[in-house]
Amino acid sequence: MAKELTVAVVGATGAVGTKMMEQLAKRKFPVGKLKLLASKRSAGNTLDFAGQTYTIEEATPEAFEGVDVALFSAGGSVSKALAKEAAKRGAVVIDNTSAFRMDPEVPLVVPEVNRADLKEHNGIIANPNCSTIQMVVALEPIRQAFGLKNIIVSTYQAVSGSGVSAIEELHQQSLAWDEGKNVEANILPVKSDKKHFPIARNVLPQIDVFTENGFTYEEMKMINETKKIMHDDALAVAATCVRVPVVAGHSESVFVEVDKAGVTVEEFRKALENAPGVVVQDDITNQQYPMPLFAEGEDPTFVGRIRKDLANDRGFHLWIVADNLLKGAALNSIQIAEAMLEDGLL
Amino acid sequence: MAKELTVAVVGATGAVGTKMMEQLAKRKFPVGKLKLLASKRSAGNTLDFAGQTYTIEEATPEAFEGVDVALFSAGGSVSKALAKEAAKRGAVVIDNTSAFRMDPEVPLVVPEVNRADLKEHNGIIANPNCSTIQMVVALEPIRQAFGLKNIIVSTYQAVSGSGVSAIEELHQQSLAWDEGKNVEANILPVKSDKKHFPIARNVLPQIDVFTENGFTYEEMKMINETKKIMHDDALAVAATCVRVPVVAGHSESVFVEVDKAGVTVEEFRKALENAPGVVVQDDITNQQYPMPLFAEGEDPTFVGRIRKDLANDRGFHLWIVADNLLKGAALNSIQIAEAMLEDGLL
Repeated sequence: MAKELTVAVVGATGAVGTKMMEQLAKRKFPVGKLKLLASKRSAGNTLDFAGQTYTIEEATPEAFEGVDVALFSAGGSVSKALAKEAAKRGAVVIDNTSAFRMDPEVPLVVPEVNRADLKEHNGIIANPNCSTIQMVVALEPIRQAFGLKNIIVSTYQAVSGSGVSAIEELHQQSLAWDEGKNVEANILPVKSDKKHFPIARNVLPQIDVFTENGFTYEEMKMINETKKIMHDDALAVAATCVRVPVVAGHSESVFVEVDKAGVTVEEFRKALENAPGVVVQDDITNQQYPMPLFAEGEDPTFVGRIRKDLANDRGFHLWIVADNLLKGAALNSIQIAEAMLEDGLL
Repeated sequence: MAKELTVAVVGATGAVGTKMMEQLAKRKFPVGKLKLLASKRSAGNTLDFAGQTYTIEEATPEAFEGVDVALFSAGGSVSKALAKEAAKRGAVVIDNTSAFRMDPEVPLVVPEVNRADLKEHNGIIANPNCSTIQMVVALEPIRQAFGLKNIIVSTYQAVSGSGVSAIEELHQQSLAWDEGKNVEANILPVKSDKKHFPIARNVLPQIDVFTENGFTYEEMKMINETKKIMHDDALAVAATCVRVPVVAGHSESVFVEVDKAGVTVEEFRKALENAPGVVVQDDITNQQYPMPLFAEGEDPTFVGRIRKDLANDRGFHLWIVADNLLKGAALNSIQIAEAMLEDGLL
């Protein structure tokens, strides 16, 4: 990786943007020049990166001139307004929003799963939803080994998935609870939605707004994105997405039905142990299983509680945990950039 | 209910015992005489009930002489030691522990579901596990209307299910977190198990200890008790039980497959709206769905997020919440006593 690249980060001050900067530094991505882009409101502010101070510029179409890689994480509307402008100017956009994920012209990529799709890009690559990424990292090796018919997932998602203000809200509500004060709710479940409910000492069975079929957008993202990433429209996927009072680290209780009959739990576990990006934590005699508090700040997708269904020979249960801001967002974006560089696509 | 009964409460100072006393008073159960029984250690202490002060007596076999109803909630070992002694002396034992739940001689009862089983008692009636009760209250009307083939549940269980010390632990950990101090864990996931992990800002995919098949006892309770209560050994049930940092109120993400084809989501919801003990909170346009924080202190089992599976015509998803100390424990025990009184079994 001798080549040095001009990298733009759009939304550098957000929960994911901050982690993107950290990942660029930590993984020694060959950043020749770094441009931090944000709304007019933030332009002029400064941010430190790798010992240097950067002034935030306004994200205009022209700001992408000369940019090799543009990492977008400033909300869907910013991506819709500027990603194509950036691509038009020769930048490869890696977009962490949902703006282009289901666009047939845009590859939706988790490098461990469908790296080859990167070749089909037209200037934009979409980074999947956080809860989708960790699930497909864990289930792709199962699909390859035994085939996959059916996925039913219930999530336990951290507040950091709703940004810095949701983390702050959990802390404030928790303090209020401890001090016996009134608990105020203004952000969760969805800032732009009509009602807000406390997350401290509570769980919220709503992430993102509702769609007409009764599922939320978050649930539909897990359903549709999983099929797209695995190139399998016939795959049955169902999701129930729930916010829990955890700062970082999404957890998922997953039931899968495989195609192959007679698969043993040992074979199932073996397939996961050999999988890229997966760390199996599954030793019940020593109470070893993944937990979000211990996944925070870690790169892998952790899998445990692997067991065979008691009624269905093709059914298995597992518990998947990953840091939603890392593998679920920033890390996967940088891994996409690394894969493109290695594959000669940058 | 003119008859007045001598009622014994074993374990009156515990999280469930306290609620049992409250329920006896609130529901005006015809308590003629109340005996509070506990270990030798607690004997001599006093407790107030309905404006009167009671001295706790030591729970010996002889203490049950003259008792009509004995409510046990002092752990499985106490029930194993004393429930049969109480029954031998003519008391009807309603046992909130797991000691006798799977005993074929002992009815396991949720009055809304299998009240008729009370007639078969031999002095002991078992109160099911908290997470089982709310699930069968919500699924029995579905089973009656459409038949039930398959249940897959993931739980979000409150710490109060582990007793007063677990509630205190969540508060202490939360305070430590807010003050930037070290978070200590000594109770959860299971006090008697080897390792303990923080519950504040975390979720624990272990409730009760593990069994040999990889499921926990809590999960096996949900599986086996549901089949026993519904009198259906062929019913497929799978559970993943998870502790979340909530004080009171268990939540459950449930997938069910019904026998009947072509059931609409309206028909499914209708069956729940007409069901005893169930309150449907399911209006997504107004963000109405059950949440544990709002179920605390409430009697019903709340059901929402009702939707049809997108791939399986017989599949439905729902979200079930109830106060685990009330319908999940104390309230159900008192409802059993009330049903027995009404049915002439007391």
